[in-house]
Amino acid sequence: MEDQDYMRLALELAKRGCGWTNPNPMVGAVLVKHGRIIGQGYHTRYGELHAEREALKACTESPEGATMYVTLEPCCHHGKQPPCTDAILEAGIARVVVGSEDPNPLVAGKGLERLRVQGVEVATGVLRDACDALNQVFFHFIQTRRPYVVMKYAMTMDGKIATRTGASQWITGEAARRRVHQDRHRYAAVLAGIGTVLADDPLLTCRLEGGKNPIRVLCDTHLRIPLHSQIVRTAREVPTILAAVSPEPGRKAALEDAGCRVWTLPEREGRVDLRALMERLGEENIDSLLLEGGGALNWAALEQGIVQKIQAYIAPKIFGGAAAKTPVAGIGVELPSQAVRLKNTVVVQLGKDFLLESEVDGNVYGDC
Amino acid sequence: MEDQDYMRLALELAKRGCGWTNPNPMVGAVLVKHGRIIGQGYHTRYGELHAEREALKACTESPEGATMYVTLEPCCHHGKQPPCTDAILEAGIARVVVGSEDPNPLVAGKGLERLRVQGVEVATGVLRDACDALNQVFFHFIQTRRPYVVMKYAMTMDGKIATRTGASQWITGEAARRRVHQDRHRYAAVLAGIGTVLADDPLLTCRLEGGKNPIRVLCDTHLRIPLHSQIVRTAREVPTILAAVSPEPGRKAALEDAGCRVWTLPEREGRVDLRALMERLGEENIDSLLLEGGGALNWAALEQGIVQKIQAYIAPKIFGGAAAKTPVAGIGVELPSQAVRLKNTVVVQLGKDFLLESEVDGNVYGDC
Repeated sequence: MEDQDYMRLALELAKRGCGWTNPNPMVGAVLVKHGRIIGQGYHTRYGELHAEREALKACTESPEGATMYVTLEPCCHHGKQPPCTDAILEAGIARVVVGSEDPNPLVAGKGLERLRVQGVEVATGVLRDACDALNQVFFHFIQTRRPYVVMKYAMTMDGKIATRTGASQWITGEAARRRVHQDRHRYAAVLAGIGTVLADDPLLTCRLEGGKNPIRVLCDTHLRIPLHSQIVRTAREVPTILAAVSPEPGRKAALEDAGCRVWTLPEREGRVDLRALMERLGEENIDSLLLEGGGALNWAALEQGIVQKIQAYIAPKIFGGAAAKTPVAGIGVELPSQAVRLKNTVVVQLGKDFLLESEVDGNVYGDC
Repeated sequence: MEDQDYMRLALELAKRGCGWTNPNPMVGAVLVKHGRIIGQGYHTRYGELHAEREALKACTESPEGATMYVTLEPCCHHGKQPPCTDAILEAGIARVVVGSEDPNPLVAGKGLERLRVQGVEVATGVLRDACDALNQVFFHFIQTRRPYVVMKYAMTMDGKIATRTGASQWITGEAARRRVHQDRHRYAAVLAGIGTVLADDPLLTCRLEGGKNPIRVLCDTHLRIPLHSQIVRTAREVPTILAAVSPEPGRKAALEDAGCRVWTLPEREGRVDLRALMERLGEENIDSLLLEGGGALNWAALEQGIVQKIQAYIAPKIFGGAAAKTPVAGIGVELPSQAVRLKNTVVVQLGKDFLLESEVDGNVYGDC
């Protein structure tokens, strides 16, 4: 086996932490000595041991002189856990092979430099693209301190998210819907608008066995959410944040009594300022957000430049209807040249449906 | 080389006739003797020799005892050309290998039976799926006598065919637009609505070098097309059919003077009855139609069950806009379960854009 093979194994290990490590990265590590794997591990959950220490702990023989494959540059600072570079040096590791370098400009390279100075051989950039792709969320959050926002919608092949009567269950098939629940597990929070709540009374939870519920965040400018809605009734079990503008005190108290947190945020064109909301979520260490909004909220999110990725689930069917709703509404751009540009589109088939996933490349307003 | 390899070559030859053979099928033929290719040919153009005779004509030595690979069952009836089975028997071909069988239930198998009776060895179904796929248009036309209709539209990833101001140039990039011109060459006619003409003043021609212009068909219920429009001004060079309901005689005469043909068709809900139009086009041997309509015409076409295939070009950009137009409008369905269902979706990347191509599987009204 070669460096890339071991790194591929480390990557697979890293993915096992998906949904549990936020706002930490997913990291995997493999220890190899005399061509044999003598230990492996991954960062299992926020607050627990880092991957490097998990791998060392799992060693079946002395790691002295071994090579460590790790998907992300080992940390050299004191956080929830002591520096991994210390553990590597103490264990007498002879060679460290790294996938991604630390994206934090204040840290990048320091951990590796520390190892090199102590005589450890260091190689970097093995499967770098795959390692980087695994931690888009972490890299974004560490650099901006705002959640990585994924806008998700399901539409027909003629661009409708509901029929003319507003009916939308279901557009996509089971495989696509399962994928959405995987993402509710993966990302730290989910964001919807009050319109969606009033129309569908959703739970916005993760229905995968063993899955993790996202924190539910609702843009509810005037606190219109009904006390008997499914979301309020489950607010004691699933953390729920209501983002409002100058909320009425009695209503705020009633919702807080029901277990919701009510945040007062600045206004922007009559609604919650989404950039301010992202800032506040970032302060609470929420590194990622699945935006499951309707057309108005989706447009506001793009206009305010808070979106990093778009997931368009497309079902092979046609609703038609000049009055049927589309995934991004609001005022929209005036000219094609002003479009929000997307890049790096990837297509995945899910049953009979397709998922087109793109990164936001910038837009007219795009300074974010 | 094996049967499949020679058939693959025959298929490649067949494709060279694309756009020129309508309403005939594309057919290719390869002659092999003692493991050497001694002749090959394809149906080059409607009215010209069939592929089998082209291959025989091109033989470099006597075809006696040779094997003929042909993508479609040889004809055994007198059309524009004498039966190919005669030519095969006269040439002393020992073995015939066929891809598709003739879809016409009155003819299917007769040509092959005739050959077998005369002692020719016959094998069928070699690369059948690929051979069938090549002639979807022909198979549809021969069985229904109505054009195979391909609905084409270009939209953003949020389902818009124009911005809120109606601007739509351009949504997709060059590779996608080139592909549309290939299809204007490939299909016999193009159909648009008067709304598109009044908004964009298009030519609807094929701008590929060496390409063939489609017959232009416009749904223009009240003959509103301006005499100074690009289409009317070029009607002497590019055949143009205006489909109208009870046209005003003076206006009809003026447009006919300009070179247009004006057809009077029955009305359906205040517009041209599209099924009647398809019937009439079929009578004129128009086997295929690229529907480049706006939302209203597209919905009418689906509602009336005349569409066989949908081509959705999707550009990685977002326009937004509650007032921006979508590819299929009209009244639309009421419930998701009533959607027009699509099947066999294939995705092709064209530059940064994607083409999702699906066959219509049936719909609420679908008896066609």
